[in-house]
Amino acid sequence: MPRNLRLLIEYDGTDYAGWQAQDNALTIQAVIERAGSRIVREDIRLTGAGRTDAGVHALGQVANFVTSSPIPCAGLKRALNDALPRDIGIRRVDEVHDRFHSRFDARSRTYVYTLLNRDDPSTMSARYEWHYRRPIPVDVWDDLCQRVPNTRDFASFRKTGSSRTSTLCDVSDCRCWNEADRVFVSISADAFLRGMVRALVGTLVRVAPEIGIGREAAGDEFQRILDARDRSCAGESAPPQGLCLTHVAYDL
Amino acid sequence: MPRNLRLLIEYDGTDYAGWQAQDNALTIQAVIERAGSRIVREDIRLTGAGRTDAGVHALGQVANFVTSSPIPCAGLKRALNDALPRDIGIRRVDEVHDRFHSRFDARSRTYVYTLLNRDDPSTMSARYEWHYRRPIPVDVWDDLCQRVPNTRDFASFRKTGSSRTSTLCDVSDCRCWNEADRVFVSISADAFLRGMVRALVGTLVRVAPEIGIGREAAGDEFQRILDARDRSCAGESAPPQGLCLTHVAYDL
Repeated sequence: MPRNLRLLIEYDGTDYAGWQAQDNALTIQAVIERAGSRIVREDIRLTGAGRTDAGVHALGQVANFVTSSPIPCAGLKRALNDALPRDIGIRRVDEVHDRFHSRFDARSRTYVYTLLNRDDPSTMSARYEWHYRRPIPVDVWDDLCQRVPNTRDFASFRKTGSSRTSTLCDVSDCRCWNEADRVFVSISADAFLRGMVRALVGTLVRVAPEIGIGREAAGDEFQRILDARDRSCAGESAPPQGLCLTHVAYDL
Repeated sequence: MPRNLRLLIEYDGTDYAGWQAQDNALTIQAVIERAGSRIVREDIRLTGAGRTDAGVHALGQVANFVTSSPIPCAGLKRALNDALPRDIGIRRVDEVHDRFHSRFDARSRTYVYTLLNRDDPSTMSARYEWHYRRPIPVDVWDDLCQRVPNTRDFASFRKTGSSRTSTLCDVSDCRCWNEADRVFVSISADAFLRGMVRALVGTLVRVAPEIGIGREAAGDEFQRILDARDRSCAGESAPPQGLCLTHVAYDL
């Protein structure tokens, strides 16, 4: 009987061309498939819940694959972690019912974007945050974020070359807060367009680049950008290293 | 008129043999002195508030030096950050009164020790935490920590080769808490013995290595170790990478 195995995966995406396997580029998916195939002694093919872009990280990526290998989950997890480079880690391996599909069954994904908001660059975590110097009006950003769940069509935040044809997403939560000199933007949705979170953060920067911007004017411009359904109206993409796929939720 | 300048310094100590200048080893102090001397065009000598050991980090080291250079503080900060390697950052430069002394005037130092408490190793922050697998009884550790401010003599936590002759310290605060799978131990004191925080964490591990250890038995053993005033009774030193000098406080 073939088994369907689900992985919970963490990675530092800095040195990878993103999640999805592609020719002539090192990707997370390909590295795990290669290690896994050697361990189970047959070619495996991973299905991932979120297609993170080059340089984007994950604390809670989920993927599954089918195998006829009888290796127990705990042993497989250990073998994978022994074989994988240090910047990719398998947090769990679970056997799931044979129709489980990491991508189609995911109810929501959560991404968190981190900005280091101070004048001095980071000495410790430059790989995981965007160094942004102007003082961020966190309360205004949080106000703008609260408009996002009321939006359905995110064409303004869609990267050109996005494979998904629909631009409709159901955002269940979007927030901004800070802890000391870090500012975080989190967003949960059933689905994301390619580059959507980075476009969102870039748009927060465009409409409220620093403390002193009026809350109402920022809100009006943000709404105008959302309503335009035109990527050229939104802000430039925030850089990838601040972005992390933190959680994928399933109905169980 | 010579000026007395105070620096607020952040560093990733991974690649350094600690704070204090020494022959034949790369130290934070020496690297900043070399960069600073070139900028102010005279030899400077830094006095640091805390002598962090090899591999230990800082978010709030304080140091001062005397110079006849007229370069304004803001310009000096910029020039230092341009000259320093990325793992050392100057957060502030301030001109202070000529009798200010980073070490003697410090009222207290605060260190935070970070443990990653889960089975899987870290993919992202191994440089800044100790990977500790057994489930830590955070509430018991916090109980033990609360005994520390009532202690005066820390001979049990003194590394051999410590230069300080007195083993008396006035600990104002000591706590343990967790956030997700990270456990933190913080301690503030007027002064620290060499290796004291790492010996403290190692002793927490010795008396309460995992969930299930009785609170009272752990408390008794911890107290016995403190009272012994003998380093050989305490636990092994926790590794340096989990330790960070977060703050030095002064009366102003």
